[in-house]
Amino acid sequence: MLELAIGNLNYSSWSMRAWLLLQHFNIPFRERYLRFDGFEPDSVFKQSALALSATGKVPVLIDGDLVVWDSLAIAEYLAEQYPDRPLWPAERSLRAQARSVCAQMHSDFAALRTACPMNIEADLRQTGALIWRDHPEVRRDVAQIESLWEISRALSGGPFLFREFSIADAFFAPVCMRIRGYGLPVSKQSDDYINRVATTPAVAQWVQRARAENDFLAFEEPYRLGR
Amino acid sequence: MLELAIGNLNYSSWSMRAWLLLQHFNIPFRERYLRFDGFEPDSVFKQSALALSATGKVPVLIDGDLVVWDSLAIAEYLAEQYPDRPLWPAERSLRAQARSVCAQMHSDFAALRTACPMNIEADLRQTGALIWRDHPEVRRDVAQIESLWEISRALSGGPFLFREFSIADAFFAPVCMRIRGYGLPVSKQSDDYINRVATTPAVAQWVQRARAENDFLAFEEPYRLGR
Repeated sequence: MLELAIGNLNYSSWSMRAWLLLQHFNIPFRERYLRFDGFEPDSVFKQSALALSATGKVPVLIDGDLVVWDSLAIAEYLAEQYPDRPLWPAERSLRAQARSVCAQMHSDFAALRTACPMNIEADLRQTGALIWRDHPEVRRDVAQIESLWEISRALSGGPFLFREFSIADAFFAPVCMRIRGYGLPVSKQSDDYINRVATTPAVAQWVQRARAENDFLAFEEPYRLGR
Repeated sequence: MLELAIGNLNYSSWSMRAWLLLQHFNIPFRERYLRFDGFEPDSVFKQSALALSATGKVPVLIDGDLVVWDSLAIAEYLAEQYPDRPLWPAERSLRAQARSVCAQMHSDFAALRTACPMNIEADLRQTGALIWRDHPEVRRDVAQIESLWEISRALSGGPFLFREFSIADAFFAPVCMRIRGYGLPVSKQSDDYINRVATTPAVAQWVQRARAENDFLAFEEPYRLGR
């Protein structure tokens, strides 16, 4: 059976993406939970992750002898192994567009990702208001993401980015969490899309578990003194 | 016919990756050259790139009405459209490994990419020696890249990362250019691999054109006063 190594559900946005694909598309898998206790070479997390792949990062997908790391490679691997499940849109042009937005999500939007690390259980609206006021590059990232979402839904007809929930929506799910958690102001259309993603059963299940995780890590939340 | 929008050959590492795929795998295409005159919103480059895709970046692949941006999405699109050409390794496990290293190249190695921007025609060995001395994180990136190369060649049997030249080698070709141009010290095995990549006809052709480009852009080379 496939095995997916993930980090803390509350913080690990890349783990979330890979997990959502397995869960949403009903692919049988076992979970291997690597708790973040730090990212230093001698942390238990780093040691465990390095035992799986040379990157020392999560997620990692293990399929027998085969180790696939990086969420984008995991997504392509699953799409290839399960051609009967619509991980990518069936239509060639939508699929190319979906791959473009995922690749962009994979390497871009550094300002948003740096200023607003994922933290599902926290109410960060006050922090978010300050970030929004002081960081024009975060406002630019969010504007570009909203525009990508709008173009994608317009091309496909919605209601998800490429009609049905696909790899692309899984890739933007942590962004939806950030926009909501930090209370970043977006259009009514974007807000509706975020609701649609958040109420997708696999996403709702991840969120519920992240909230119940109850594992506050000070080094993940330098902007809070505790909770 | 496919059209590929690229930037300056001497500087644009992402353009190089996509171009190498089309050229090496004999896929007919036209080139659209967007000279870097700056990355400000009012530069000719940015205006032209924004007319093609919302990211305002190169490369962009145009296939009739369809626009594919980001080199990783372009690679997957070409692999899908030309299943008779071995863009990815044919073997399932090597293909998964190749996708993992490409995805890692796509979002990782920030220290090397920041400290050593691609500059094919320049002899930057003196700059490189200082960077090597002063930037442990660059040394770490290069060590990790060498280890990825070694593991990949060991898995596949070489001589390229996954036997024959594939998307993975195209993705690391600009890294080979950097290691060579900045004179970064690597193992004999890595040096042999870099030679193998550099003498691949498509790579050699790009390098030759980059050297002949003769278009010095001061904002691309803050570390030089001129040439």
